[in-house]
Amino acid sequence: MTAGLPSPVPGGLVGLDDVMAASGRLDGSVVRTPLVECTQLSDLVGHPVQLKSESLQRAGSFKVRGALNFVLSLPAEAAERGIITYSSGNHAQAVALAARLGGLSAVVVLPTTASRVKVDGCIRWGAQLVFEGVTSEQRRQRAEVIAREQDLTVVPPFDHPWIIAGQGTVGLEIYQDWPEVETVLFPIGGGGLASGVSAALRRLRPGVRLLGVEPAGAASMRAALDAGRPVTLPSSESVADGLLPNRVGELTHRHVSALADDVVTVDERSIREAARFLLLNSRLVVEFSGATALAALLSNAVPSPGRTVAIVSGGNVDPEILVDLVGGS
Amino acid sequence: MTAGLPSPVPGGLVGLDDVMAASGRLDGSVVRTPLVECTQLSDLVGHPVQLKSESLQRAGSFKVRGALNFVLSLPAEAAERGIITYSSGNHAQAVALAARLGGLSAVVVLPTTASRVKVDGCIRWGAQLVFEGVTSEQRRQRAEVIAREQDLTVVPPFDHPWIIAGQGTVGLEIYQDWPEVETVLFPIGGGGLASGVSAALRRLRPGVRLLGVEPAGAASMRAALDAGRPVTLPSSESVADGLLPNRVGELTHRHVSALADDVVTVDERSIREAARFLLLNSRLVVEFSGATALAALLSNAVPSPGRTVAIVSGGNVDPEILVDLVGGS
Repeated sequence: MTAGLPSPVPGGLVGLDDVMAASGRLDGSVVRTPLVECTQLSDLVGHPVQLKSESLQRAGSFKVRGALNFVLSLPAEAAERGIITYSSGNHAQAVALAARLGGLSAVVVLPTTASRVKVDGCIRWGAQLVFEGVTSEQRRQRAEVIAREQDLTVVPPFDHPWIIAGQGTVGLEIYQDWPEVETVLFPIGGGGLASGVSAALRRLRPGVRLLGVEPAGAASMRAALDAGRPVTLPSSESVADGLLPNRVGELTHRHVSALADDVVTVDERSIREAARFLLLNSRLVVEFSGATALAALLSNAVPSPGRTVAIVSGGNVDPEILVDLVGGS
Repeated sequence: MTAGLPSPVPGGLVGLDDVMAASGRLDGSVVRTPLVECTQLSDLVGHPVQLKSESLQRAGSFKVRGALNFVLSLPAEAAERGIITYSSGNHAQAVALAARLGGLSAVVVLPTTASRVKVDGCIRWGAQLVFEGVTSEQRRQRAEVIAREQDLTVVPPFDHPWIIAGQGTVGLEIYQDWPEVETVLFPIGGGGLASGVSAALRRLRPGVRLLGVEPAGAASMRAALDAGRPVTLPSSESVADGLLPNRVGELTHRHVSALADDVVTVDERSIREAARFLLLNSRLVVEFSGATALAALLSNAVPSPGRTVAIVSGGNVDPEILVDLVGGS
């Protein structure tokens, strides 16, 4: 939670009204992404499956929703001073874009290993770039130093009600487009998307099954649910480089434990296969993180899913990885 | 035109009511594909651009619309005997799928050079495959021999009012989703999509600009418009292998000359660049034919397009071509 900023729901959970308000703020500035029906997938799974294709979102992932909702919720004086964030990539791009859309200046702290396509995105939206270390913690510390020096507001990647409410608009749109949905699958990194989607859908359709999916090598939400509180994983590793936070948030843990049904894990091979399937059969370009929810469905980790939406969270993939993915099998 | 079958609009043009009737027949059996907003493209072109993404259609292209409308319009006794078609690929897959959906048996005559992904599609839908030569004319002759021998109905690839009315549902959906559209760009091979989309949109939005796009090396509609009648090109060549018919139809020529505004041509390099743009920036997997309409926009062949829809007609691309496209530049 960013110090010094009012929280719209102190101590509580993000509500449907917060998500609706975010939806109003975002209207016209983000893409209302389609549910893409994949009949081949439906035939394979034996249930109707639709893909909520946030890979087709502005800046290539759902992240712009939370970032823009944050920017548009800031008090005017904080907005004037500017914002800063730290991220492995998609959140950074989203903050850069949100700042551009809101007329703010932005600094983004990226890992030295950030993928080219994500760096290019930040440059395109006019953000100032700082490269620092390889872990989330290193980036966070550097961002906080700069924030103090320059009096900037830190935009957290996931653990803030404004971020959660923004990501929740994904859930709202799923319900609007397919109110009969029975199971919704979403990837979990830090838990912002999971929290927002659960906040919206649990209220809109109480009986829906809400399932988070994590790479087995970065199962920080699974660990938090098992321990009853966020725990720090000694390490996290996966091709799904958007899902690597080794500790979920206090707030996101609370949302997922209260509102979601379960969190399952998938192995690396399933994630790769899901990405390849989306590319060759659904004709969507996705990053590995974006294929992770579908991986749970394809690897039969979800018994009797019924009418299912898998959230394809992002499509920012380096061309080299795409070549590797298409070429290999 | 298939001999012996009633034509719903003998001698005339396909009307809006034919397209509406086709839409009713197809409802629930084909994907209602999204208009995908590409903000990066809009920024680049300086006008709002949306992509009618038929690459996300069943069997990977718009072709299933015409084929299924044809199958569902057949008299019962003809349907019982079965159907046959000839195609470089997408129409073949579409007929195979339409036959499956309609419970008919289908034979498809493919070129010996058919791309693997298109052959696999035909196999998946249970059609009987025959490979014959490399030109459209060779395939047509073989198909007609088999049709006579086995008393099958030939499903023509484009020059039939039922096919045109089916493809026209693409235009109807564009209007329903974005009635303010000012320019619609569509690729032209034999002219079925062009005819159907023009038949629908010219009536729904009389002032809309309707522009066909052909590869410079396969400009059979441009040649027909210049000559005032369909002419046979001595040869046709393009990476856009779905747009290679070297002669447009009598009926499709009549529709395009009466209803469309113009037909422009694009070079091979523009088509490649458009396909690469769609893949890396719009995150849609497309075949070269599917990128051809956008190529006209990106190469500035369309002055002051205003609010524009480019039809991305198909996404059936072999993995090797995808690798080449992503890797090269």
